[in-house]
Amino acid sequence: MNDTWITVYAPASIGNFGPGFDVLGAAIQGLGDRVEVRSANNNQVKIVDITGEGAETLPREAERNTASRAALLVLETLKSRGMSVGGLEMKIDKGIPAGSGLGSSAASAVAGGYAANVVCGSPLSLRDILLPITQAESEASGGFFADNTASSLYGGAVICKSSRPLDIIPLGGFPGLVVIAVTPKIRLRTEEMRAVLHRQVSLQDSIANMARSTTVVAALLMKNPSLLAGAFEDRLAEPVRAPFIPGFFDLRRAALETGALGCAISGAGPTVFALTDCQDRAQRIGEAMQAAFENVHLSSRLLITGIDEQGAREIFR
Amino acid sequence: MNDTWITVYAPASIGNFGPGFDVLGAAIQGLGDRVEVRSANNNQVKIVDITGEGAETLPREAERNTASRAALLVLETLKSRGMSVGGLEMKIDKGIPAGSGLGSSAASAVAGGYAANVVCGSPLSLRDILLPITQAESEASGGFFADNTASSLYGGAVICKSSRPLDIIPLGGFPGLVVIAVTPKIRLRTEEMRAVLHRQVSLQDSIANMARSTTVVAALLMKNPSLLAGAFEDRLAEPVRAPFIPGFFDLRRAALETGALGCAISGAGPTVFALTDCQDRAQRIGEAMQAAFENVHLSSRLLITGIDEQGAREIFR
Repeated sequence: MNDTWITVYAPASIGNFGPGFDVLGAAIQGLGDRVEVRSANNNQVKIVDITGEGAETLPREAERNTASRAALLVLETLKSRGMSVGGLEMKIDKGIPAGSGLGSSAASAVAGGYAANVVCGSPLSLRDILLPITQAESEASGGFFADNTASSLYGGAVICKSSRPLDIIPLGGFPGLVVIAVTPKIRLRTEEMRAVLHRQVSLQDSIANMARSTTVVAALLMKNPSLLAGAFEDRLAEPVRAPFIPGFFDLRRAALETGALGCAISGAGPTVFALTDCQDRAQRIGEAMQAAFENVHLSSRLLITGIDEQGAREIFR
Repeated sequence: MNDTWITVYAPASIGNFGPGFDVLGAAIQGLGDRVEVRSANNNQVKIVDITGEGAETLPREAERNTASRAALLVLETLKSRGMSVGGLEMKIDKGIPAGSGLGSSAASAVAGGYAANVVCGSPLSLRDILLPITQAESEASGGFFADNTASSLYGGAVICKSSRPLDIIPLGGFPGLVVIAVTPKIRLRTEEMRAVLHRQVSLQDSIANMARSTTVVAALLMKNPSLLAGAFEDRLAEPVRAPFIPGFFDLRRAALETGALGCAISGAGPTVFALTDCQDRAQRIGEAMQAAFENVHLSSRLLITGIDEQGAREIFR
């Protein structure tokens, strides 16, 4: 155990990553959560401070906060393997607004769980801590899905091959791919966005999404952005979720007309994102997307960034 | 035009390739159709001979035979681009039994269409001839799908990104991957096997197939056969098609217990195939699969082979 503070950063992430509903995810640069921990001489995890985006709304009980809950579950994993572990003190600095569709609860869980492992000397692998982290995140989001947690933990894009047993495939990053994320000032609850999904889909839509999600994986692994064109429309979740994001279809049209390779809802929304391999075009695409939100009287935040290839990491200041 | 005979070979192929219903396909070695053509001084395509598997059952009218129909449509494509083309004489040598689920009609269409282009001096690209070839194949199979035609034409595995407009992504081969194909002595009609499909599927099954088909693409591109484990079960077509293949589930269990990475129906069946990266194990897996068919009183043919990386090609004897 280590009684000086260590700091862990976990990036924001895009769940579904276009057509890959519950299957694909990708971490992004420039936005993330920070968790500081140090060991304590008891068996408790105690939150001593929460700062940043929406800090005042987040639970401070260790069992109910996603970051500390993930840390607790990682410590339990260590105990179950016969290690003697103590307690933790934790400070959380939220960089990602909750309910934005950018994997806010996932990043907190990843940072908390990763930090707990680091402070114990990193005896567990990423694969080992993904399960307790995803478990903690599922308690916040109401569903056991690893597209956000795995991409935030591993960095790059991921395939969630299976939920039970949890099995993911890291696909690495995509240098040169520009991610344009626009977050309107509305908030959607992941649980509600799950409730609107249809339990049955047409075989044709299922095939279309499979064709597109396999195409996205090929584009990522072949580092060929041009393959992404036409592959980002989702027929499983988007038709029922888009109505909760005013102006979405006009926004997408504007993004594509301005030269984006694709445009989709990030996770459960309301953030929408577009992709391009042309850095010079990114600002214009972002402004076109923001203008579409302004047309329906929504202000928004614009982030022009790229895929985060590192995932969760200890940072030193 | 060229009035000496030229010979084109097009490989058999596995449609769906496990979980990729209508989306993934892969060409295989060791089985294929041969088409010979030479130019003729008229505007007709004339079949002068058909030999090989089921030759006596195949139509000899140029408009109704898949190979000559593809050649006709390729010639029409050339005419529409302003080229002056004449007629063709064609001999067809069937290596792939019809109705086996190994892309028999696709290989004929590919060989016929490819040969027509070659005899005219190969003015068209593979991309150009894929559409007329797939059109010809669709008239035989009753559905416009390119998983067999594109893999037979390009070789290796393919993603069918979109049917209309037709857009495919060649993924290349997979050296070291062993394909074990077992064809029982029953025949299934592709059209009937399409009719049994459910028009609606559950969201959960759709997600599962998407997770698995993206995994298969990652395994192919990362050349990592171990990723294939657990990724080959199909929830879209297999549940309704397997009952037409006596003993299928016992056969799959036997293949997996003998060490196969995965086992699935090839295309619309009745051929079933298994994969392994261990050449030494392939014979035992094949025998276990054949024994499962024997248990339900079906004799079968065993082919132990690999992915064909070349696709359609002119052969010189």
